[in-house]
Amino acid sequence: MKSLGIVTPQSMHFAEPLPLQSGASLAGYTLVYETYGELNADRSNAVLVCHALNASHHVAGTYVDAHTGKKQIGWWDNMVGPGKPVDTDKFFVIGVNNLGSCFGSTGPMHTNPATGKPYGPDFPVVTVEDWVHAQARLADELGIKQFAAVMGGSLGGMQALSWSMMYPERIRHCVVIASTPKLSAQNIAFNDVARQAILTDPQFHGGDFYSHGVVPKNGLRVARMLGHITYLSDDDMAEKFGRDLREGKYQFGFGIDFEIESYLRYQGDKFSEYFDANTYLLITKALDYFDPAKEFGGDLTKALSETRAQFFVASFTTDWRFSPERSREIVQALVNNKRRVTYAEIDAPHGHDAFLLEDSRYMNAVRAYYERISNDLEVA
Amino acid sequence: MKSLGIVTPQSMHFAEPLPLQSGASLAGYTLVYETYGELNADRSNAVLVCHALNASHHVAGTYVDAHTGKKQIGWWDNMVGPGKPVDTDKFFVIGVNNLGSCFGSTGPMHTNPATGKPYGPDFPVVTVEDWVHAQARLADELGIKQFAAVMGGSLGGMQALSWSMMYPERIRHCVVIASTPKLSAQNIAFNDVARQAILTDPQFHGGDFYSHGVVPKNGLRVARMLGHITYLSDDDMAEKFGRDLREGKYQFGFGIDFEIESYLRYQGDKFSEYFDANTYLLITKALDYFDPAKEFGGDLTKALSETRAQFFVASFTTDWRFSPERSREIVQALVNNKRRVTYAEIDAPHGHDAFLLEDSRYMNAVRAYYERISNDLEVA
Repeated sequence: MKSLGIVTPQSMHFAEPLPLQSGASLAGYTLVYETYGELNADRSNAVLVCHALNASHHVAGTYVDAHTGKKQIGWWDNMVGPGKPVDTDKFFVIGVNNLGSCFGSTGPMHTNPATGKPYGPDFPVVTVEDWVHAQARLADELGIKQFAAVMGGSLGGMQALSWSMMYPERIRHCVVIASTPKLSAQNIAFNDVARQAILTDPQFHGGDFYSHGVVPKNGLRVARMLGHITYLSDDDMAEKFGRDLREGKYQFGFGIDFEIESYLRYQGDKFSEYFDANTYLLITKALDYFDPAKEFGGDLTKALSETRAQFFVASFTTDWRFSPERSREIVQALVNNKRRVTYAEIDAPHGHDAFLLEDSRYMNAVRAYYERISNDLEVA
Repeated sequence: MKSLGIVTPQSMHFAEPLPLQSGASLAGYTLVYETYGELNADRSNAVLVCHALNASHHVAGTYVDAHTGKKQIGWWDNMVGPGKPVDTDKFFVIGVNNLGSCFGSTGPMHTNPATGKPYGPDFPVVTVEDWVHAQARLADELGIKQFAAVMGGSLGGMQALSWSMMYPERIRHCVVIASTPKLSAQNIAFNDVARQAILTDPQFHGGDFYSHGVVPKNGLRVARMLGHITYLSDDDMAEKFGRDLREGKYQFGFGIDFEIESYLRYQGDKFSEYFDANTYLLITKALDYFDPAKEFGGDLTKALSETRAQFFVASFTTDWRFSPERSREIVQALVNNKRRVTYAEIDAPHGHDAFLLEDSRYMNAVRAYYERISNDLEVA
């Protein structure tokens, strides 16, 4: 398959403050983004890809990692590119990094114009809706009045769903994968344990660790290890690691006995080297706060009643973080509103992470849906 | 129902070293225990209750908590007592605290005779089989050649199962509740995250925190919060806490938003006040290492082939830590060996913690089983 090759990120500065859901506002800010493919003459083929917890605007193609200096592949390169399910020969695809991130868009490690020092803990708590608002401004600047589709997995799917509610006229198709209309108590509980690991790490310094020249690595490491467990299915972990021992026998100590320990600690170590602790806190809060039905007395059908898009919703059978049942709630609420909705429940072993992985049934379902979008483009 | 009233713990010192599965051995040690009811003339009515992760020998009745000085109820007081499912009017019940614990039996905070200082990180890693070995010595000293039953829930169930394999002639009935023949990769992963939270807490000082006059509270707190999530079912958490907000609205900060956060942090705080970090590490390792089929090439049927007891196995439908499927593995292996086994799969909403809670179907099943044991006593 053809590759997009090296992609150069772009950035756009916004001088006008962004009013936030919290009541605070963010002064002038920058969004970094990447684009793939060409915007057509009537600007009708744009697709916005929203990212999840620890991803970024590096959706497809190859980029040079700011931290390691090494070439890296975009996180959804299997999904987006020439001839791929989201075909960049047909669509103009935008990957945008969200506010509060640590990958380029304005975040806690950037200078707070009010103080001349890094925002740190003063970076405002941002929500999914705030991100969508900021993304809409980027679309304005890029001259995109209406997206052919807005899509995302997990937290990215929440942004796509928000687009359909906040800007119903600006999105023809909404693609929501491995997502949920709101976090459960258990989801929130896992997030809060991760946050507590960071907040109580003495190196966190109340979020002001930048000025101390340290990083709360231990907290980030535990947070990531825990998160990682929830991204994999029990069965997949059993299949990949089982009770395999690193040294073939018990060590009777607290080093590494099991391969699963080695794997998780490695993932935690790696993450703590590059991810920002304040960003982790912010993004988990955005997850916890997402609940579009809240202002409608918990009625998701009402929350989705103003949508105009067509929907593609997908879930994965072994995803216990955001189980198929949660996607079905979205589908049911859309059906209640007589929206046109395609739902794929994929029998996949890889848990929540399945939305990032190669799986022919999943990829074919997305491909078929985008072919329909593309056919509509040509007819129009 | 009658109460056992105040129960006074007893202790027994063992001068003979205990050889451990690791190859190390434990010098003279003490076990603390409680007894309820009377040992009958032919010493045939003794029941041993084994405890799980954070419990102790305080099984039933009332005791004065060493930490708070307050009166507390035993952790299985709903199960054990006069007229209760394990009826102390008929049975002589022993609750014993395991080695490595922080509730009285020799553990990491006690003096290492070799150094004159607290064991700390030098306390040897002990296994379920080591505990059972130590319990058997206590039984010897109490003049109990054969238990009417050995019982336990979760990690306690593993000890009961080990009794049936290690001392087949010394146990007539084996009662295994909410347990598993071995931890899964996911179970181990959760334990390892908890351990990493403790091990990387700067206050842990490599396990030697006693000499620094500090306690790794942050690590213990995170470990407990995480553990607690795995003890409750997703549904039960949704039912009890849902997305209820402490202050009725989002706080847009990192304090407490949701009731579930408040609950878990409270549980974590409380636990970190009284539990020993080294004990936590030791007990989670005992859980991880338990795998009686290991030396039989993973064949649980073979591992259980030398058992002679009759079995009662129970599981709870919403227990996702040790799901019913894991209990069914035990049952199947016992059936393969033509052992007499009673299995109860209880439709209960409370997840893994259900084994500690009042539930009439569960309590009645245990009661009926113990009535059968009691009838056999009278016949004999």
